[in-house]
Amino acid sequence: MSYPQTLEKLVESLCRFPGIGPKTAQRLAFFLLARPREEVVSIARAMVEAKDKLFFCSNCGCLTEIEPCALCRDSRRDRGLICVVQEPRDVLVLERTGQYHGLYHVLHGALSPLDGLGPEELRLPHLFSRIKENNVREVIIATNPNVEGDATAAFIARLVKPLGVTVTRIAFGLPVGGDLEYADDLTLSRALEGRREM
Amino acid sequence: MSYPQTLEKLVESLCRFPGIGPKTAQRLAFFLLARPREEVVSIARAMVEAKDKLFFCSNCGCLTEIEPCALCRDSRRDRGLICVVQEPRDVLVLERTGQYHGLYHVLHGALSPLDGLGPEELRLPHLFSRIKENNVREVIIATNPNVEGDATAAFIARLVKPLGVTVTRIAFGLPVGGDLEYADDLTLSRALEGRREM
Repeated sequence: MSYPQTLEKLVESLCRFPGIGPKTAQRLAFFLLARPREEVVSIARAMVEAKDKLFFCSNCGCLTEIEPCALCRDSRRDRGLICVVQEPRDVLVLERTGQYHGLYHVLHGALSPLDGLGPEELRLPHLFSRIKENNVREVIIATNPNVEGDATAAFIARLVKPLGVTVTRIAFGLPVGGDLEYADDLTLSRALEGRREM
Repeated sequence: MSYPQTLEKLVESLCRFPGIGPKTAQRLAFFLLARPREEVVSIARAMVEAKDKLFFCSNCGCLTEIEPCALCRDSRRDRGLICVVQEPRDVLVLERTGQYHGLYHVLHGALSPLDGLGPEELRLPHLFSRIKENNVREVIIATNPNVEGDATAAFIARLVKPLGVTVTRIAFGLPVGGDLEYADDLTLSRALEGRREM
């Protein structure tokens, strides 16, 4: 005897999530079966509703339910500042700090010629026209600290600087609360390189 | 700016799963948003369908879509053998070994007076009538190897033995593929206790 069919289907469905293997999927399935029907329906509905209502803002590329998004409409935000990130979730991460009050530009990836991700796919032409048309004074590049992210940052910097705009890269260094001893060499060299006078 | 409302609701929904915190929930949410609509709908539907179609077999207590369950209906299974387990998922785990061909009895818990789980709540009277009515010759107790599971096993053994039925407990010892060095003291003493002649 194997699983009853609907249980098998549920476990298979849950297995599609990243990082969830058959054992965890089975645990989640049994959890669902032990919950009241309304709760299961509400989780299922939240999934479909999110998929139906959320899309990417045509201006900045972040996730939104309205067009343009709340960030692009917010008149209190500094329109002279654009922070460039790779993914929509990066916007949420940065917003959580409460420290940034400019606008965003989500690339939905990083330059990667091998994967066919060139400047057009990353909406870079749209970034450049946003910069030109909106009197932007600084572009903060917050792509990931890896080969693709750095290459993308360099590419953007090369094209934006001639427009007379300041281009900055977020700082790399020791994570706060971390331990010098456990920092990898690359992070440590970047931390030395980026040292600031106290 | 916080999450768009539907995204927030989705992340909250996913957080209800055991072992899934806000960070993992956010990762899963973004995964869902990146999948085609049909796939999201199919996962959502699998959840509700499982909840709607699965119930517990009135005879053995395992998860099923039909009454009585496929295990109880299967004429090739040895009706003289009943394996007692705590949870419906334990049936699946044992079935996976392919080594057991008798029937099951799921208690849906273990004796725990503090939690109000007495013999009645665990369907123990039903187990005893199954044993009497079906000419059962052996009851294998596969409750968990902890205080509640052991107490439940002892309770069942005390009541079933007088019926002239053999009562056995699954073996405890070193997990296969494990390392003696890493076994805890209790497992090791149980392994010694349960030693068998070679």
